[in-house]
Amino acid sequence: MLSRLWTFCAGDVGPFEVVSVRAVCGEALPLTARLNVVNGDDDSANACTYRLRGVVSNERYLTGVEKRELTRVQQPLGRAPATLGVLIPIKKSDAWWDLPQDARRTLFEERSAHIALGRRALPNVARRLHHCRDLGTQEPFDFLTWFDFAPEDEPLFDDLLVRLRATEEWTYVVREVEVRVRR
Amino acid sequence: MLSRLWTFCAGDVGPFEVVSVRAVCGEALPLTARLNVVNGDDDSANACTYRLRGVVSNERYLTGVEKRELTRVQQPLGRAPATLGVLIPIKKSDAWWDLPQDARRTLFEERSAHIALGRRALPNVARRLHHCRDLGTQEPFDFLTWFDFAPEDEPLFDDLLVRLRATEEWTYVVREVEVRVRR
Repeated sequence: MLSRLWTFCAGDVGPFEVVSVRAVCGEALPLTARLNVVNGDDDSANACTYRLRGVVSNERYLTGVEKRELTRVQQPLGRAPATLGVLIPIKKSDAWWDLPQDARRTLFEERSAHIALGRRALPNVARRLHHCRDLGTQEPFDFLTWFDFAPEDEPLFDDLLVRLRATEEWTYVVREVEVRVRR
Repeated sequence: MLSRLWTFCAGDVGPFEVVSVRAVCGEALPLTARLNVVNGDDDSANACTYRLRGVVSNERYLTGVEKRELTRVQQPLGRAPATLGVLIPIKKSDAWWDLPQDARRTLFEERSAHIALGRRALPNVARRLHHCRDLGTQEPFDFLTWFDFAPEDEPLFDDLLVRLRATEEWTYVVREVEVRVRR
């Protein structure tokens, strides 16, 4: 059975070759040769340049209707043609986290169409969201999102990023890094 | 500055004398002599019979109107007359966590009046909610709630527990323990 905890280890080992690391907002992450994606804690002796941890958790904003639709359409990670991967760690501001639930939901979907925009990239782009904020340790990010897709879907993925980053929700993002990899 | 992580250490040390430990639902916790409440990780050499950890996090269900009202009325923990404390660890079922956000909110408030019931005990009963489910470790509970109040408010607190445990929300609780202490 899979652990809900995943560890992203960037260094010299792992099935993914790092193509680029880009700071979208705030401080970047170091460029490494490889990225490893480990279920659970990384208890290997591999030296990592950095190690990011996050847990798969319950949905925070989806309604039942939205969840049924996404579940119907989305595809699993690791499909054979999906040789490109992107890890996007994000940190949001204290102002975001201080908002009550209804205000965050309104910003997320009614004002920023986060779900509707993400829906445009389905089923081609697969994703898994990991939460880091409540790990109980000092984590540099609040979320890690891990995507994969086939090379011909890279423009669709890039378009999704451009649209999401133009939303009101993104005005609460204080740090965002884009780590692009190839399997 | 306080850490968002808190550790409840039950053993032979701590400012709180344990009065009783009762399993409301599922397996109990061992009865110990004392309870210690530590901000951050418990890095003391104290041997503990059990140690429960949780983080203070953002609100998951409160609307802005509800948050403003609770913030206006609630009192801090540790008031001089509040010599009684209760730690209530709770675990909810997978069925709860699989529900979309809107269904959980509806069960929580519109069908179970969790916030409205809690409001009845304010300002007499102070509380702090800690989340354990996303710590990334195998935790026995999803939440730890820590309450304190003056001895004359114990009937008000007991009435709150009876009412909450009769709600539809509580049909999703698979483990609940009540640890009562005195300072």
